[in-house]
Amino acid sequence: MRKTLCLLAASAALLALPVHAAPAGATMTAGDALSIVTDLTSDVGQRLGGTAREAAARDWAVARLKALGFATPRIETFPITGWERGEEKASISAPIPHKLAVTALGYSGATPPEGVSGELVYFPTLDALKAVADGALKGKIAFVDHAFKATQDGAGYGLFGAARRQGPSIAAQKGASALLIRSIGTDHIRSPHTGVSQAPQQGKTPLASGAVSNPDADLIALLARKGKAITAQVTLTPRFTGQVTSGNVIADLVGSDPSLPPILVGCHLDSWDLATGAIDDAAGCAIVTAAALQASKEGQLARTIRVLWAGTEEMGAYGGRAYAQAHAGEPHAVVMESDTGADRVFRVGLQMGAANEPLAAKIASELARFGITRGPNEAEGGADVGPIAEKQKLAVIDLNQDLTRYFDWHHTPDDTLDKIDPVQLQQNVDVWAAVLKILGNTRTPIAPAG
Amino acid sequence: MRKTLCLLAASAALLALPVHAAPAGATMTAGDALSIVTDLTSDVGQRLGGTAREAAARDWAVARLKALGFATPRIETFPITGWERGEEKASISAPIPHKLAVTALGYSGATPPEGVSGELVYFPTLDALKAVADGALKGKIAFVDHAFKATQDGAGYGLFGAARRQGPSIAAQKGASALLIRSIGTDHIRSPHTGVSQAPQQGKTPLASGAVSNPDADLIALLARKGKAITAQVTLTPRFTGQVTSGNVIADLVGSDPSLPPILVGCHLDSWDLATGAIDDAAGCAIVTAAALQASKEGQLARTIRVLWAGTEEMGAYGGRAYAQAHAGEPHAVVMESDTGADRVFRVGLQMGAANEPLAAKIASELARFGITRGPNEAEGGADVGPIAEKQKLAVIDLNQDLTRYFDWHHTPDDTLDKIDPVQLQQNVDVWAAVLKILGNTRTPIAPAG
Repeated sequence: MRKTLCLLAASAALLALPVHAAPAGATMTAGDALSIVTDLTSDVGQRLGGTAREAAARDWAVARLKALGFATPRIETFPITGWERGEEKASISAPIPHKLAVTALGYSGATPPEGVSGELVYFPTLDALKAVADGALKGKIAFVDHAFKATQDGAGYGLFGAARRQGPSIAAQKGASALLIRSIGTDHIRSPHTGVSQAPQQGKTPLASGAVSNPDADLIALLARKGKAITAQVTLTPRFTGQVTSGNVIADLVGSDPSLPPILVGCHLDSWDLATGAIDDAAGCAIVTAAALQASKEGQLARTIRVLWAGTEEMGAYGGRAYAQAHAGEPHAVVMESDTGADRVFRVGLQMGAANEPLAAKIASELARFGITRGPNEAEGGADVGPIAEKQKLAVIDLNQDLTRYFDWHHTPDDTLDKIDPVQLQQNVDVWAAVLKILGNTRTPIAPAG
Repeated sequence: MRKTLCLLAASAALLALPVHAAPAGATMTAGDALSIVTDLTSDVGQRLGGTAREAAARDWAVARLKALGFATPRIETFPITGWERGEEKASISAPIPHKLAVTALGYSGATPPEGVSGELVYFPTLDALKAVADGALKGKIAFVDHAFKATQDGAGYGLFGAARRQGPSIAAQKGASALLIRSIGTDHIRSPHTGVSQAPQQGKTPLASGAVSNPDADLIALLARKGKAITAQVTLTPRFTGQVTSGNVIADLVGSDPSLPPILVGCHLDSWDLATGAIDDAAGCAIVTAAALQASKEGQLARTIRVLWAGTEEMGAYGGRAYAQAHAGEPHAVVMESDTGADRVFRVGLQMGAANEPLAAKIASELARFGITRGPNEAEGGADVGPIAEKQKLAVIDLNQDLTRYFDWHHTPDDTLDKIDPVQLQQNVDVWAAVLKILGNTRTPIAPAG
């Protein structure tokens, strides 16, 4: 029952870094990571993929990257399936009246405008939902608990996130009139976590599906443990808006030797619509951009660093796939991505292949001064740079961030500027800059990872 | 800018206590404090003063106190002015579109159903609002910042709470169409803090007034600092429901000598309507009740302990005044109250007068084993026992709780069971029981405090 947020701060990882107020605005320059996060979240705000706000963010990004000296910042558009949030409310009326803090999952279907009502059936895990017979939940609302706990490396998001990704189609198959899940988040506040459910399928109407906050899920679980019958009401009226336009913003910090394939560093420009997207992923764009500038501060690098501020990552990783398609014919040396908040880098994953081991060892050695350990030689890249890396079998470097508190705020109304720790944000920039400096001045070929 | 919740946990006060999961339900008994909080918040839930849910809470309380062996649990009703929350939404539309997490202040007036819209005028403090000319804000929405920071003893709630208590009438005088204030709270999440504004006045329609969450207030402050003109929309439609019934629940743990005046221990049964009222004040009722039982576990005390679970504290301290009026003719020995959450007691305030100094010293000496220091010889009692104490000039003892994180959750949708730390809750019970044992077995007269 006791799951205070404050427990997290007791971890050596967090206490090791001093925590203090952000530097005053006067001392910030436009290329500082904190400045980029502050301005993107306050000059643009929320920027859901495929909306006018995401288009405003692209214009903002082009102007900022240009002002920072990046060459030819450009927008590359692509089509996506649009989706917009509607009314969102849910409550229980028995055994006690209680409003639930709820939000629709991305690409959720809608209830009728008046909502649906019925018995809420409690499932402790997704497997428990899977186990009931098809059609057994007719007229009922399925609730899947499946609680996710904080870890430094974010393990569990795959397993427990399945309730969000697979839950809607499974609950539909069981006949449920709506699905509610415990938020895929590690916080203990009444902030529900959205997130994409499944890609839209032609001609199929998905089930109305929402996430409720952890304290609400705790109450539902307690009532279920007490053996009480629960009656719930759910109104979720999001709508599909047809084919709409999203886009990537791409810019180059030009290297001195154009014959060398560039280093691709990615993040995503879009955010969920519930907040201003400070940690997800204004921080990532700020880190890769500020680090590229910092790495070349003492002299132009040999290799070009290309920044990819991808569009529509949240609603199904469209931007990364569009980049891979558009740039499949161009060489790339290595890819990196920042898309897990702004807390410190604690580990490096170097998926670079045997041929690049001397370079990998050099990077690992350099990062030791930041207290960073070398993890297994595996790296994911992420949704934005992953598709091109897979297509071209590229070397990938993951600078793993401390995720202990990342999933407290991830995809919630609480992804706001105050969640950024400027000291940890700057540690990211310093670490990234150190890596980019080594890579950027590596004139010998960087082989595919194989 | 960096104001993480987790900073709090670094305080020695909190780290000094081990933090772990609540005991399993099976090991709890009905008189355990955690059991009382768990059941009141899940068997009844929210219980705003004067509503059917508060009436349900009274019935629940009578049954529980009876089951725990208290004599003649009884309900004493009194009338209050009823008020119910309506629609609550606010947003800014310029310079960027952004939804604000907002909630109406208690006894707020209403906007028209379609809301009000206009320029938002930023005031860094309440004094800044006071300084503008009457009528100057016609057609505008006033925003008062006035940020409140966490302290162990809660200092600042008086000063900064003035924005909530006096703000609406001042903003009305200035001609504003609505008032928004930064939540009177120390958190950094999008959970707005309600709280009573002013007592309703016959024939006067108060200004529509709401509190926005701290991250939203941060964004507004940042936009104001950037010199941006802000346009806002506010829809708040609470309504006054006329004269309704609230009530106190009173019960006695009978002492062996009925000639001795009883010890009165208070808390309040009502809660705000936004959450289940775990820390405010199910915890207080749980502490005073569990402590009374624990103090008499090894033998009946000489004095009776009377528990007062007061009604309608939140909406204007009606319950405490009703008790003082109904029981003005009865003697009381000493009063105590628990209404500041469930975190540990760190200090004792003994307002007992010179005549009771030997008793006060004995209590202070006993509490040293809990690491509790003796503060100034001042005590407030609180809204529930304060009025009778004032009327009868009674001795008052305050067991001051650590308020470092109390105002994170106070009056918000986040006042839920998971915010209770069972270890600190039990420390309260142990401390209270130690004091009640001494007082309950004091057969010599306890003098008025003078």
